[in-house]
Amino acid sequence: MPYTPHDPRAPRIALVGATGAVGETLIRLIEDRAFRYREIHLLASPRSSGRTLHVDGVAHPVSPVDTFDFADADLAFFSAGTDVSRKWAPEAAARGALVIDNTNAFRMDPRTPLVVPQVNADLLARRPASGIVANPNCSTIPLVRLLRPVEDRWGLRKVVVSTYQAASGRGHSGTAELREATRAALADPADAGPQAEFRPTLAFNVVPFIDELLDSGFTMEEQKMLQESRKILDLPHLDVTTTCVRVPVLNSHSEAAWVECDDSVDRAELVARLGALPEVTVHDREVPGAFPTPRTVTEADHVHVGRVRVSPHDPRGFWLWVVADNLRIGAALNALQIAEELVARGTL
Amino acid sequence: MPYTPHDPRAPRIALVGATGAVGETLIRLIEDRAFRYREIHLLASPRSSGRTLHVDGVAHPVSPVDTFDFADADLAFFSAGTDVSRKWAPEAAARGALVIDNTNAFRMDPRTPLVVPQVNADLLARRPASGIVANPNCSTIPLVRLLRPVEDRWGLRKVVVSTYQAASGRGHSGTAELREATRAALADPADAGPQAEFRPTLAFNVVPFIDELLDSGFTMEEQKMLQESRKILDLPHLDVTTTCVRVPVLNSHSEAAWVECDDSVDRAELVARLGALPEVTVHDREVPGAFPTPRTVTEADHVHVGRVRVSPHDPRGFWLWVVADNLRIGAALNALQIAEELVARGTL
Repeated sequence: MPYTPHDPRAPRIALVGATGAVGETLIRLIEDRAFRYREIHLLASPRSSGRTLHVDGVAHPVSPVDTFDFADADLAFFSAGTDVSRKWAPEAAARGALVIDNTNAFRMDPRTPLVVPQVNADLLARRPASGIVANPNCSTIPLVRLLRPVEDRWGLRKVVVSTYQAASGRGHSGTAELREATRAALADPADAGPQAEFRPTLAFNVVPFIDELLDSGFTMEEQKMLQESRKILDLPHLDVTTTCVRVPVLNSHSEAAWVECDDSVDRAELVARLGALPEVTVHDREVPGAFPTPRTVTEADHVHVGRVRVSPHDPRGFWLWVVADNLRIGAALNALQIAEELVARGTL
Repeated sequence: MPYTPHDPRAPRIALVGATGAVGETLIRLIEDRAFRYREIHLLASPRSSGRTLHVDGVAHPVSPVDTFDFADADLAFFSAGTDVSRKWAPEAAARGALVIDNTNAFRMDPRTPLVVPQVNADLLARRPASGIVANPNCSTIPLVRLLRPVEDRWGLRKVVVSTYQAASGRGHSGTAELREATRAALADPADAGPQAEFRPTLAFNVVPFIDELLDSGFTMEEQKMLQESRKILDLPHLDVTTTCVRVPVLNSHSEAAWVECDDSVDRAELVARLGALPEVTVHDREVPGAFPTPRTVTEADHVHVGRVRVSPHDPRGFWLWVVADNLRIGAALNALQIAEELVARGTL
């Protein structure tokens, strides 16, 4: 393992939201991918601080974010919610840390690049004007990775997406609530169980509502997928329309994406182009079971795609079924891959 | 209650598949809606016969279908699977019974009308050439009920649907397996539990595969929604494309439907037209919770629709979120409403 904690060139890291589901996943990925650091500071809201977590076998206290001096960090990951990022990420950037923000706070800020390294890593060649690189929404990331080669080859005209999003999108408390509410429903079918994270209950239910409602009638989650896809793909007029639905799955989001192109799509070429993408697995043996599902995919760091079907009525349209680990692909892994690119390009 | 079991004009009923989830639901609906009959014969496969069930407080034995003489029935409901219908429904029709078939066996037969009473009850004015009236697929029924007024007012151009289908689509054994597999997964996250009905497991999972795979790459379930929608709406070139997904919900299917029309759609008029449909509830108070979900809808005999959103980019496109009880709306209730229409029109 090329881990060299005392490499004097390695960055000093601050990890805000270290105790959350994304923060913990980020720590595991830092270890697994042997991401080098000189120091690591685990931070959280005052409510969640005080615990001790291990990174690479070394115990670190979790300190409150509001007493940390970000001048002591070269790189700061934020995954403690939009409010914490709004309050502290500009401060961290002003003190000299390069921020990788996993929240919605700065994604549409024109001075902040919105990056999926497999799509637009070139934006990481220099420090952004805001000092912040934004990590996109968990549902947007796998989608744009698959849409990029489609746009390049056939031209994107329209994308219609229905999502099947897991409870872990609400972090540890989301998965805990789904388990507890499911136990309650198994004991008494009329019992909804706790409804702090999901309302109505997610136990044996599907809930077509994520994040807040906008005047347009779409939810913020649905609008994010439109706006972020446009920004990441640099296609400001791309038509992406979505219904975002929470399903009783613990982890990994799925999406049924209907894609319309300018030109006719050849299915074999589509499968080949998707299969050639980095860290993408196409499940294309067309027999029962040869498709990805949240509980059966094994490579958690790959985007999984299956049920690739070109319309028999108009070969400019096709379906994809996409499964990706929302805590990794959709959050922590994308953030860490941004950091790896920043290091590789000498930006950090 | 206007139940008059000895009314000499009331039909003699045979109910094939009486012990199944749809059959049991049909018995409850016959009671609740006071559907009149002179005799009722409960039938099932030899494997499931031998039990006793109550209808309107009277105990009836469940007899094997293969020893029943269908000359003793005026009306025969079939919900015991496609194989049983293929074998016995034509025999029942030949012996004089008018068959209402809940399976896929005859839906696309040109001599067999495919009926959703709220859409095309006029086909019930006379006995069909085959002696069989087909009940559509559970996912098709709620959709076509909502699409009919859209076609009439704005013209349908394309319908893109992703489904969220409940375990009860596989009957009692489907819901039992979901409960058992969920219990197993709660005890041990790696445990898939039994996988006789759903493979891979449906516990905390979503499975984009229902029924068999066709050469086109679409599943039979997906093709049914296309073909049946065309036949019921009498729009032979309608473009309906679907991804059908099983979700860990016990009962009631949901659908996210993206609809494109020839003309621009006014949202208020759309909501008004959908709300004016018989047995349809539009959930249109746009606050969190004001949308239908499988576990929160209360009128099980209504199609529930919410999240009505016209595209801000092109007002010819809009989304609907549809929830309907697949055992009632999608099967037993539609079948019984066919029977009620046959009686009302003097066809039976």
